[in-house]
Amino acid sequence: MNQPLDPKTFTINADRLWSSLMDMARIGATPKGGVRRIALTPEDKAGRDQFVAWCRAAGLAVKVDRMGNIFARRAGTDPDAAPVMSGSHLDTQPSGGRFDGCYGVMAALEVCRSLDDYGIRTRAPIEVAVWTNEEGTRFTPVMEGSGVFAGKFTLEHARAQKDVDGISMGDALDSIGYAGDAPIGHPVAAYFEAHIEQGPVLEAAGIVIGEVTGGLGQRWFNLTVTGMEAHAGPTPMRLRRDALQGATSIMQAIDALGRTSPDTRATVGYVKVEPNSRNVIPGRVTFSADLRAATLAELATLEAGMREAATRICRERALEIDIEQTVEFPPTPFAPECRAAVRDAATRLGYAQMPLVSGAGHDAIYLASVCPAGMIFVPCKDGISHNEIEDARAEHLAAGANVLLHAMLERAGVA
Amino acid sequence: MNQPLDPKTFTINADRLWSSLMDMARIGATPKGGVRRIALTPEDKAGRDQFVAWCRAAGLAVKVDRMGNIFARRAGTDPDAAPVMSGSHLDTQPSGGRFDGCYGVMAALEVCRSLDDYGIRTRAPIEVAVWTNEEGTRFTPVMEGSGVFAGKFTLEHARAQKDVDGISMGDALDSIGYAGDAPIGHPVAAYFEAHIEQGPVLEAAGIVIGEVTGGLGQRWFNLTVTGMEAHAGPTPMRLRRDALQGATSIMQAIDALGRTSPDTRATVGYVKVEPNSRNVIPGRVTFSADLRAATLAELATLEAGMREAATRICRERALEIDIEQTVEFPPTPFAPECRAAVRDAATRLGYAQMPLVSGAGHDAIYLASVCPAGMIFVPCKDGISHNEIEDARAEHLAAGANVLLHAMLERAGVA
Repeated sequence: MNQPLDPKTFTINADRLWSSLMDMARIGATPKGGVRRIALTPEDKAGRDQFVAWCRAAGLAVKVDRMGNIFARRAGTDPDAAPVMSGSHLDTQPSGGRFDGCYGVMAALEVCRSLDDYGIRTRAPIEVAVWTNEEGTRFTPVMEGSGVFAGKFTLEHARAQKDVDGISMGDALDSIGYAGDAPIGHPVAAYFEAHIEQGPVLEAAGIVIGEVTGGLGQRWFNLTVTGMEAHAGPTPMRLRRDALQGATSIMQAIDALGRTSPDTRATVGYVKVEPNSRNVIPGRVTFSADLRAATLAELATLEAGMREAATRICRERALEIDIEQTVEFPPTPFAPECRAAVRDAATRLGYAQMPLVSGAGHDAIYLASVCPAGMIFVPCKDGISHNEIEDARAEHLAAGANVLLHAMLERAGVA
Repeated sequence: MNQPLDPKTFTINADRLWSSLMDMARIGATPKGGVRRIALTPEDKAGRDQFVAWCRAAGLAVKVDRMGNIFARRAGTDPDAAPVMSGSHLDTQPSGGRFDGCYGVMAALEVCRSLDDYGIRTRAPIEVAVWTNEEGTRFTPVMEGSGVFAGKFTLEHARAQKDVDGISMGDALDSIGYAGDAPIGHPVAAYFEAHIEQGPVLEAAGIVIGEVTGGLGQRWFNLTVTGMEAHAGPTPMRLRRDALQGATSIMQAIDALGRTSPDTRATVGYVKVEPNSRNVIPGRVTFSADLRAATLAELATLEAGMREAATRICRERALEIDIEQTVEFPPTPFAPECRAAVRDAATRLGYAQMPLVSGAGHDAIYLASVCPAGMIFVPCKDGISHNEIEDARAEHLAAGANVLLHAMLERAGVA
């Protein structure tokens, strides 16, 4: 038992997957070919309604929890078995693409539809999940629905978050009718999430399937360098305490630290210069550092290196330095059994694959704290995401869904 | 003839100078001890009215040109002699100090008052000038009144400039009643301007009088570095085209170029990072470069060095670079006879002095193109200006006015 079906004959319906993706992309479509379906807006409601309608048409049992997370279940033969779950999110960035999140939901739905096509029953139920507000665009934090499901923060905390107009997440959820009555959290046997890579690695390597090893840990910081604001003209170079010149040296040290290992990242993305006037020597520069690594030890090394460089550079230049940590995510290795299921499925299907770490956050990262979890990455064009020009090839999306199908079947068992 | 009076007995009235400065500082006074007297506002009108009242009380003949520049003349004995002029501006930065500009006007007025005290008649007339909109805070360009006087741009051009509310400079000038009927421009025998240094050099050296050698030439640029915007998490360091990391290297090269000579300056004051998000690799960085030098040759060397560094750094990192020049001021050496007059006066008065270049723009820079010109700098606290905490010592301000008095007398001749 639990033998895989013949991968040559048992694959998902690639045309149907693509059609569903394109149908969903029309909800909140932007003139430039992207999607604007911000969490808990009328567009998000319309996307959810479309998803629920498709699930009901496929005979799935739909429930919505109090956080607005949607679960659509295809029953298994074992009434006591926890579901094997897959999903992602339907909300997008303000100028988002057609595949970020939506692909993981549609691939999971396609798994259910394909199992119906072939009349296959599984031992454990198969469950499709749509997580509320993954993007964190309108309400913080990111990955809010899966975070509440995994107990990372409370429903009350999540509902109290307000958007820029002062509307609370709870009120927004109520207003679109997706504050469900299902309690928060239920047992999950395994969780898989298919997603576009949102990075350039697979495309650059010419590989179709990324077997995701886990999520990088993250530490984010705000660094503030303070010197002495002064007129550019009357102040000789030797008498300057230029906060920007000190900051640029620290920024370069941060970048260099990120290059110490293939799976470390160090990024300065945000810079604020004060007073930011063309003929005034900057008196204060605030900038961000986003450090990521696959292990806590590497993360600690990055942080220590950054603090040492910042302190040394500012001491040498008579500048003041303040470092404040703003974000901490521990590294999340995915479950060996889920990684193996993905790897084996790709092997059996004959897809070129490689292990790949997830540098970004995903709902699967939170799920990994409550059940065995894994992810499947497929290439996206030029590694671009969170952008209306985000693009992916239909055959890559189908390949990822095929791997998802067989990985889920391996975990759920064929009845 | 033209022998200097005994400097031991003939000095300006330091208390009266200080009182006038403090009286003027009450017009537009800010709670933090600074002044907000933006060009052509009701506060500027009140400051001008106060100045004109003082001039009339001192028996000076006041005229206002069509640009709003005010000239208050103390007659000389030679009816054909062009005036020896001194002045500065009464407008301030939005959060300005009590001395920037105002000191030069009050020192020149104090020269006239002191000549009256001693009953001294000069051969050439003495003229006190107040230049319109030196700061360029509300209407661009800076040094607008003296620029029109010197023929750098036309009255029509100046009057057409609009503030952020869409009010033209001309309408603002009309509304405060300072669009006078005097024609633009008249002969000037010599021009002197006393000013706080607005830099740290005199204070650091413990010297009272800066004998200003001239104004640095300026070339300003906008540099734009374009790379590839990408997610900080999923994009390995080796696949990045980080516009900010390229830009920081160019910024450091610019700073290093400024250190090649004591009288060169190179400043990056403005930085704009796009998209400026903590977890996105910057795709585009725009920043300013403000290059200053005392000679055209040095200025050209600075620019060439900057262009070479920017081009090389961007080529090495697969980034694109665009460089646009926005400002050009040629270096302005002051007239030898005016410099000598300042130097000799300081020597005779027994003040410690040093030659010093003006890194900032001043009305005297424009006047230098139509007459022999010179400047006198006095220390300001911590080199700080354009700030409400701008400060200067009464004895330094008096010393500068004494040098101004004797330099002007030397040029005007005692009748």
